[in-house]
Amino acid sequence: MELTETLISTTPIEHNSFLRIDRDQIRLPNGNEHARIVVRHPGAACILAVTDDDKVVLVRQWRHAAGRALLEIPAGKLDAGEDPAQCALRELGEETPYTAECMEKIFAFYSAPGFCDEILHLYRAVNITPTSSLHPDQDEFVETELWTRDQVRQAIQSGDICDAKTLLALQYWLMESV
Amino acid sequence: MELTETLISTTPIEHNSFLRIDRDQIRLPNGNEHARIVVRHPGAACILAVTDDDKVVLVRQWRHAAGRALLEIPAGKLDAGEDPAQCALRELGEETPYTAECMEKIFAFYSAPGFCDEILHLYRAVNITPTSSLHPDQDEFVETELWTRDQVRQAIQSGDICDAKTLLALQYWLMESV
Repeated sequence: MELTETLISTTPIEHNSFLRIDRDQIRLPNGNEHARIVVRHPGAACILAVTDDDKVVLVRQWRHAAGRALLEIPAGKLDAGEDPAQCALRELGEETPYTAECMEKIFAFYSAPGFCDEILHLYRAVNITPTSSLHPDQDEFVETELWTRDQVRQAIQSGDICDAKTLLALQYWLMESV
Repeated sequence: MELTETLISTTPIEHNSFLRIDRDQIRLPNGNEHARIVVRHPGAACILAVTDDDKVVLVRQWRHAAGRALLEIPAGKLDAGEDPAQCALRELGEETPYTAECMEKIFAFYSAPGFCDEILHLYRAVNITPTSSLHPDQDEFVETELWTRDQVRQAIQSGDICDAKTLLALQYWLMESV
């Protein structure tokens, strides 16, 4: 079956410092035209960081779209031209009181490819060490929490952890130990 | 730390049959005002469906935002007022040549809570049986593929499977068997 769609035209609708909303006119495999709203995003890095005593570093922050605070792995958007591994190192230092020696790529994935081009690059932080201070972005409000494997297992089952990238990283962590 | 943000006003920017783009003015915990683009989505159901001979049912379809075809678990948006389990049953029947006796909830999660309110409800399809025909939406082009656990493990490692909800469901499937 021919699956390929081709772009006919793009109309910019709205943007902010990191998102761009476009209305794209596309041609379907059967020749029909169709309009799609596309959310264009610079991509992001997210980090599975585990302490020496086997606790995972999570951050709690308000998510306006969800209307609640969520518990997530540290993550942040790529700056223009930034290497994802560098972004992961930077964001871990900005959002949590930890730094890492380096980052090992786990995998990358689309968060919502039905309407958005965001790619999330998931890294394992290598040799994390506590730092004395936090350096969050201005107007960023983030709390760090350390969770054990048992707490994570229970929070996945209960639905208390309900962010896709975080569930992906934590399932990966739990699978490693089997 | 106080994390709560409060909504000051919402300005509708754009919409289509299922997405709504708003520009929200919000008040940060420190009292500052901030504008956020929010993508509002009706939510969706996605399905981990496994055949009697232990192969997972995947669908390949073009994703315009990604600019490529992706291999994903069957999924679809909730109709207005639709129960997510009912949506999962319907979408499995529409996108693949299989139907299920019923759906068991695994968990639900936000796909991209930094800017979007989409919640994905992940179900395990119970007792799937082949049907004679496909009933895709008009203008929907979807191919079904059946993959073994070993194929799935390799495709996760190689990056050939790179959709968040699909990776989540497949990790869950691989963890079950351990």
